[in-house]
Amino acid sequence: MSNFYSHPTALVETSTIGEGTRIWAYAHVMNNVSIGKNCNIGDHCFIESGVIIGNNVTIKNGNMIFEGVMLEDGVFVGPHVFFTNDLYPRSPRLPQAKKRYETQDWLKKTLVKQGATLGAGAIILAGNTIGEFSMVGAGSVVTRDVPAYALVIGNPAKRIGWVCQCGIKLKQDGQKAICPSCHLVYQIQENRISLL
Amino acid sequence: MSNFYSHPTALVETSTIGEGTRIWAYAHVMNNVSIGKNCNIGDHCFIESGVIIGNNVTIKNGNMIFEGVMLEDGVFVGPHVFFTNDLYPRSPRLPQAKKRYETQDWLKKTLVKQGATLGAGAIILAGNTIGEFSMVGAGSVVTRDVPAYALVIGNPAKRIGWVCQCGIKLKQDGQKAICPSCHLVYQIQENRISLL
Amino acid sequence: MSNFYSHPTALVETSTIGEGTRIWAYAHVMNNVSIGKNCNIGDHCFIESGVIIGNNVTIKNGNMIFEGVMLEDGVFVGPHVFFTNDLYPRSPRLPQAKKRYETQDWLKKTLVKQGATLGAGAIILAGNTIGEFSMVGAGSVVTRDVPAYALVIGNPAKRIGWVCQCGIKLKQDGQKAICPSCHLVYQIQENRISLL
Repeated sequence: MSNFYSHPTALVETSTIGEGTRIWAYAHVMNNVSIGKNCNIGDHCFIESGVIIGNNVTIKNGNMIFEGVMLEDGVFVGPHVFFTNDLYPRSPRLPQAKKRYETQDWLKKTLVKQGATLGAGAIILAGNTIGEFSMVGAGSVVTRDVPAYALVIGNPAKRIGWVCQCGIKLKQDGQKAICPSCHLVYQIQENRISLL
Repeated sequence: MSNFYSHPTALVETSTIGEGTRIWAYAHVMNNVSIGKNCNIGDHCFIESGVIIGNNVTIKNGNMIFEGVMLEDGVFVGPHVFFTNDLYPRSPRLPQAKKRYETQDWLKKTLVKQGATLGAGAIILAGNTIGEFSMVGAGSVVTRDVPAYALVIGNPAKRIGWVCQCGIKLKQDGQKAICPSCHLVYQIQENRISLL
Repeated sequence: MSNFYSHPTALVETSTIGEGTRIWAYAHVMNNVSIGKNCNIGDHCFIESGVIIGNNVTIKNGNMIFEGVMLEDGVFVGPHVFFTNDLYPRSPRLPQAKKRYETQDWLKKTLVKQGATLGAGAIILAGNTIGEFSMVGAGSVVTRDVPAYALVIGNPAKRIGWVCQCGIKLKQDGQKAICPSCHLVYQIQENRISLL
């Protein structure tokens, strides 16, 4: 057993949780969930069976992380982000839709890569990948893949800039981009950016 | 007493709940609520007095179903849909607004007809009817009635297609539309569609 | 000790709560929170240390009020409003972002002035002031200050009219505006309005 903390009012039904991770009030972590070290999972969260979460992840209050979602190391999930895992949902109890839910072909996955930020109330349509260290603005609706280091906002979410690993907006200078805070330098190539 | 399940951490204050219905962790169902058979009500939901819910309804986690909302058979309510029942809300405790809350004239109803889908984070302005088997996209803002079988998205939500009872987008062919999955055929008449 | 009510399933860790205030099921009020008299705090709310709330405030279900937010008297917070307090959030546990979280310089405040309404699912970007008796429409994204008495909607939220203290839309008549319900008269000056 690792040394993690769970609030007395929380329900934790898995034991694969890393050291130093804290799970707060009224949160519910189902069985068959894997959570890394040193994470923070806020009040009223729900983590469904099948979810995999890396180390150093911060999940703010009220999040529902459904089966099919994977969060890599260092991800930030703002308050009440909306994950989905079905692009054409019906009540599986509706007779006309039952056939579709006999297998798991309906399940679409979502991958959030290391260090990415999902702003408050962002909506992440299933089947997309959120690139490493990217930042999704509050209230944005993500309908396709987000490139690494991209800052995206709006409905549908579009790129309006690039951000550093530390979260600060990069200043572009020709084919290069520089972080005004930690001075990392990036190389821009068409619609992609990478650390020099 | 019918044979329904409620999680040990749930609060259930009504007994008019149909057989096979399940109510999950930290959910709160108030008194004077009526829920049909074979429904599923996720963690952290709140169902207010006066609400009526049919059979085979799926309510994902974190939903708040307020007085004035009626959900017919087979409805799907995605995670954290926003229902409202007041178009000009103020704190009823605010002295300048107290008069308005002395009666229930402020209360506007919402009807969600059989088999309809409300996507994750959709916002449903009070006073509207969501037609049978329609589908409201994730994050959409519904500001007027949604026709039966319509697929609507955006803010404000607009129709971008038609969906089958099973949830799949219909292929239009002149005045007809056909489901590529279950092969049901529909007749289109102006802005309405009906099963042939 | 004042005479407030808290539901048996609620967690209340502060004692500075005014008379007549009610805190409902599965809500969590942290220590170092101050709440006035005659407030109503719905199920599944989370109120973080450092928050200050006035009298006669109504906070509907599922709200998360974070450090840095101040709600004046008579404010209405609709279901699941999104407050934020960091414009460029990263997981504070992410090594590349740790430096930024060593101080509280990242913390941006939000002030909601007396009598204002925040509609269901509205997103309030940190660092803004919501003017007295203003009304933010459901699902709007507030990216700058909202003037007193303004009715704002959309993403980003823009002003589409003025509302009375009682919540009803004002009828404009030249440089004046009148409430059709309670007959208060206002004076309009450029983009500002004030009670005559």
